Amino acid sequence: MRETDGVPTGPASQQGMRRANLALVLGVIARAPRSRAEVAAETGLTRAAVSSLAEELIGAGLVVEEGPAAPSGKVGRPGTALGLNRDGPGGLGAEIGVEHLGACVVDLRGEVRAWRRQEIRNRDRRPAAVMADLAELLRRAVAESGLRPAGLALAVPGLVGADGALLQRAANLGWQDVPLAAELRLALRAANAEELAELPLRADNEANLGGLAELWLGGGPAHFLHVSAEAGIGSAIVVEGRLLRGARGYAGELGHVPVRPDGPRCACGAHGCLEQYAGESAVLRAAGLEGVRGDWVALLAERAGAGDEEVRDALAGAGTALGIASAGAVNLLDPAEVVLGGGYAQLAPWLLPAMRAELAARVTVRPWADDRLTVSRLGRRGPLLGAAVGVVRALLADPGRPEG
Amino acid sequence: MRETDGVPTGPASQQGMRRANLALVLGVIARAPRSRAEVAAETGLTRAAVSSLAEELIGAGLVVEEGPAAPSGKVGRPGTALGLNRDGPGGLGAEIGVEHLGACVVDLRGEVRAWRRQEIRNRDRRPAAVMADLAELLRRAVAESGLRPAGLALAVPGLVGADGALLQRAANLGWQDVPLAAELRLALRAANAEELAELPLRADNEANLGGLAELWLGGGPAHFLHVSAEAGIGSAIVVEGRLLRGARGYAGELGHVPVRPDGPRCACGAHGCLEQYAGESAVLRAAGLEGVRGDWVALLAERAGAGDEEVRDALAGAGTALGIASAGAVNLLDPAEVVLGGGYAQLAPWLLPAMRAELAARVTVRPWADDRLTVSRLGRRGPLLGAAVGVVRALLADPGRPEG
Repeated sequence: MRETDGVPTGPASQQGMRRANLALVLGVIARAPRSRAEVAAETGLTRAAVSSLAEELIGAGLVVEEGPAAPSGKVGRPGTALGLNRDGPGGLGAEIGVEHLGACVVDLRGEVRAWRRQEIRNRDRRPAAVMADLAELLRRAVAESGLRPAGLALAVPGLVGADGALLQRAANLGWQDVPLAAELRLALRAANAEELAELPLRADNEANLGGLAELWLGGGPAHFLHVSAEAGIGSAIVVEGRLLRGARGYAGELGHVPVRPDGPRCACGAHGCLEQYAGESAVLRAAGLEGVRGDWVALLAERAGAGDEEVRDALAGAGTALGIASAGAVNLLDPAEVVLGGGYAQLAPWLLPAMRAELAARVTVRPWADDRLTVSRLGRRGPLLGAAVGVVRALLADPGRPEG
Repeated sequence: MRETDGVPTGPASQQGMRRANLALVLGVIARAPRSRAEVAAETGLTRAAVSSLAEELIGAGLVVEEGPAAPSGKVGRPGTALGLNRDGPGGLGAEIGVEHLGACVVDLRGEVRAWRRQEIRNRDRRPAAVMADLAELLRRAVAESGLRPAGLALAVPGLVGADGALLQRAANLGWQDVPLAAELRLALRAANAEELAELPLRADNEANLGGLAELWLGGGPAHFLHVSAEAGIGSAIVVEGRLLRGARGYAGELGHVPVRPDGPRCACGAHGCLEQYAGESAVLRAAGLEGVRGDWVALLAERAGAGDEEVRDALAGAGTALGIASAGAVNLLDPAEVVLGGGYAQLAPWLLPAMRAELAARVTVRPWADDRLTVSRLGRRGPLLGAAVGVVRALLADPGRPEG
């Protein structure tokens, strides 16, 4: 057989074949518990091959025998059903926010087994100090879950290099050129969590992970634009079920799309970027809450919910700007949906009307309908969920990989 | 082996295997002429298998023996080199423009063997009349080329359905819901070109085909935004060597990205779209040439080249708007390059300075350099070349497909 990336390159090895078949069998079992006979029927592999592959997956702790399979309507006794092992390896997610830290463990089935969040102002703190707190949070989350993580993924509000190790810039943390992976490993060792320090570790931008969480858990289409806000505005473009990362990994900077080219000057140096209308500082300023500390999303949601007109007007203004920038993105990308996620999900009731109006007015050369602007059910939990679930999905997609 | 779309689904048939190996062998030969031994070494297939596959490719007229292969530095006599058959099946491209028709035949190596263009005002003409002229042009181009086309692809300035048969809307032609494929087949039959009427036929948007031509023939990166203009403004987003078509095939409508949200009303109903600053009518109006007929690109290039300040100012204004819209797209998509193509390529000397200034000012959260804004060498020939070359590429990618 050939490599499965669409480019046939030459005959592959027996080992490569077995590795692909392990993934094939595990993929079938992951969709729903199946007997060996059912797995054989679905994959086209022989019963003997399935049995041998299943033994390997059971041995690796990925699969368990679940008791009799559901009657399949066929003649004969049902076999034993094979299912994902909920006590098998898990995915460990970590998150560094401007105002919080997070840790999460999910099991092979994607169920959350531990979830910890710590409110703490990280802006302008030294990375080492932040990592020490994060390591402690991770250690506790893993202990609570009772699972052994297969890998660790870290969500950060900044640009991460393609290797997933180096943070290039996180303006809202005041960080630049931080070796995230090395720093976190150091902190985990110092926290006596040696086994976590040795896990495969990848960092990624929080907006990317939020978009992937929406793809994997949101139940929506495979082609969408996910627009989110924490400290900054981020977006994730998902095309045919894949995250579009761009030529150098910088895709998704919706926050710096020009909304009014002669508008106020942005921290990035340009004028009239979306962040100048719908970012944290801009909305707080418009709401008469400039300089207020703490959780800006919760504060705005509370005041708007209580009927504060100034806050509602500020959010409507942000919705207009979000609508203008999103309309441009829709004309360019033709997503099936625009999904409002992250902090915006919580503010949706006051953002949506203005945003819908702009989309309806500006997306006219193709079918558009209000119900194609949706609100994420994951909201601010997205990035951390995306980090943890991504670890498990990578394991399920290639259970036979050498390091796995 | 498995399907090569990245999702293993089950063991494939012997037939599927042979079909994949035909493509594998042809792909190696298409890169450069090779002896059978070299093909075997590169593919990992046996000499016997390569010989059998080569016989089939020769029998299908795709491959020819080219005489002795170049010495490879290895011991032993060089074998006969196999190369693509320049008299084998070709690709037939057709183009309906607002002010012209085009026909082109390329051979298996992608060389243009016939190229015909007819200046004719198609706006508001009946599709059947346009198709009659186009059929005649195609018949003559094929006769001139001496090749038998393997398929026909048609470039149109409008939105084409996913099936490549139905034109949904071409505002600049005044056409709506035109069954392009059926109309062109009818016209080809009426022109006594029965063999052309029976070819596989696909229509596509001209901006898409222009972007694909740039990808295949432009020699640039695999990740770029191609910005072009004929009657309207179009763009093509190429990501990792693939055209991004969007959820419903409408991607690339850069012309309706908002540049100034309160700007002039566009024909699409929205305000301040890029077309209102950089489209044909807008630039002619700004240049004091409103209502002038004929080839607007040639006219503007001639006047600007002669030093007409009003025309130069109009083009600089268009360049500013193109820069604003492109900057938003770059922040969103992170392409390796922005390529100015189609009619804009001819106007580039007067568009580029303002466009560069906007990109430099607005793409600031990542590395950007002036040399990442480039000009297509294909220019207005792109869509027609893309149509013809696409036919040949599809054939080379899967020479054993049942209908091929």
